[in-house]
Amino acid sequence: MSATAPFDLPSWSAARQSAVEQALTRWVSVAAIANAAAGPPAALVESMRYAVLDGGKRLRPLLVLAAAEAVSAGLPAVPSLAADESALRAACAVELIHAYSLVHDDMPCMDNDVLRRGKPTVHVKFGEAGALLAGDALQALAFELLTPDETRVPASRQARLCRLLARASGCAGMAGGQAIDLASVGLALNESQLREMHRLKTGALLQASVMMGAACGTPTPAAEQALARYGDALGLAFQVVDDILDVTADSATLGKTAGKDADQNKPTYVSVLGLARAQAHAQALLAQALAALEDSGLSDTRALQGLAHMVLSRTN
Amino acid sequence: MSATAPFDLPSWSAARQSAVEQALTRWVSVAAIANAAAGPPAALVESMRYAVLDGGKRLRPLLVLAAAEAVSAGLPAVPSLAADESALRAACAVELIHAYSLVHDDMPCMDNDVLRRGKPTVHVKFGEAGALLAGDALQALAFELLTPDETRVPASRQARLCRLLARASGCAGMAGGQAIDLASVGLALNESQLREMHRLKTGALLQASVMMGAACGTPTPAAEQALARYGDALGLAFQVVDDILDVTADSATLGKTAGKDADQNKPTYVSVLGLARAQAHAQALLAQALAALEDSGLSDTRALQGLAHMVLSRTN
Repeated sequence: MSATAPFDLPSWSAARQSAVEQALTRWVSVAAIANAAAGPPAALVESMRYAVLDGGKRLRPLLVLAAAEAVSAGLPAVPSLAADESALRAACAVELIHAYSLVHDDMPCMDNDVLRRGKPTVHVKFGEAGALLAGDALQALAFELLTPDETRVPASRQARLCRLLARASGCAGMAGGQAIDLASVGLALNESQLREMHRLKTGALLQASVMMGAACGTPTPAAEQALARYGDALGLAFQVVDDILDVTADSATLGKTAGKDADQNKPTYVSVLGLARAQAHAQALLAQALAALEDSGLSDTRALQGLAHMVLSRTN
Repeated sequence: MSATAPFDLPSWSAARQSAVEQALTRWVSVAAIANAAAGPPAALVESMRYAVLDGGKRLRPLLVLAAAEAVSAGLPAVPSLAADESALRAACAVELIHAYSLVHDDMPCMDNDVLRRGKPTVHVKFGEAGALLAGDALQALAFELLTPDETRVPASRQARLCRLLARASGCAGMAGGQAIDLASVGLALNESQLREMHRLKTGALLQASVMMGAACGTPTPAAEQALARYGDALGLAFQVVDDILDVTADSATLGKTAGKDADQNKPTYVSVLGLARAQAHAQALLAQALAALEDSGLSDTRALQGLAHMVLSRTN
């Protein structure tokens, strides 16, 4: 697509969501995971598929693909298993990490949630031990997807993608943010502490999605830094909106239990800033994200712009 | 060391256990994990250190280092943080995966064990949610260790190490074996089914330890295949001995609860073969492992030989 053609985000997203769904359906399967030593047990793979193949919004994969397209000339219009394998693998790997975090987060010892995207959560369906193992195996599979035998993904890119994903997932990223979240129930955090928690808990993986997409091309250092700023602002905006929806939306729209944060006395942007200031803060973060794209020097960032707007206007 | 010098396994092991302990102490720390975005929460890192820095036998790291030394000419006598960074990182990464699996395996929804290596298990000490997150973060950290920014570990080796570790950890490896184990309580497995379960549950990671060590050098294809056979036989022997110890050792010697498998009506090599045949089977697997080393064409495999003997004669 050229920079001057009209841009249709819903069509752009739908085509890529479909490509991601197809790739996940193929890669999270007994046949794809079997290696020289053995195949995986069918029951475990079934629980992993249940956790992943649920028609989520696929925001993180879309960010990977949008960033990859922004930094790469000549990518085909829609990624497919036959081409763009780096970006598609990165997109699916990020989604597997996200899916594993939801599975573990929903468990009784964490949030004890029984409903996720309108379906029983994994531990309700497969038992607690089954959910624990499904999450563990999904995390490992993410790194498997990033390190295929074939040379279609250059080794240096495989290493860089693993590095970005591991850092964003681990204790200085998502898992660390979860730990802070857990420890902060009932505490009065100020805005700065809340921001640091969310920067780890949800921001790190959203930012990594953008950076992993960028790692599938050859951006200038300036473009890469601008994309990092975009990812950071977008990640925080996502969480502010999440906190707003927790108080303004109902469970049916959210596909998960609404009002849980307030019930559990968790600090949120709404509890810290109030609803009106939280909404203004989300708008300011959107403006920061869009400004970073302007600074990037990249010729076509319309998909990234569109996704930022989508994060702000989402209702679930 | 030359192939003709007398070989002292206890000294060889002690020096490398100490190097691994030093490296883990340094790498599983707030300072080492902090990245550009943020540092990890101290409480989470504390639980990870508790799980890892416990003076275990470090069998898997020793296998990594022994294999790396067998395929590499000119490695210094003892690995250090200043040199051999590939092998030391691989050794620590495998141990982090092993540690995370123990943390999750001990949780109430799995084996519900309160004692591990003579200490309260992680969930007893840090709560169930804390144990869940510690395990998740340890898995991510394993892949972080394998993908340092510095170029001292070539990117192609980083990618290969991640590939080997991810496959051995995931649903066609350790997590898959755990799932089969869980589903097999109370079932009558035959020896072949039992072998397949253990090949995944413990064998895959032990074999991967050997192969990751080999990936730190440049073995011939024949040597690599021989090492894979060594790792496979050693992995099975390890589990047979584990099953034997579960009925012949006491909890104080084991450092964990003895007799649990029988109590839980889990199929084991002893329940399937009887004690005497299980012991003979372990000896036969040792012979297979040693024969594979003879076939390898490698000039000095004494450490690998010694570790195989140690696996057979261990008492905990």
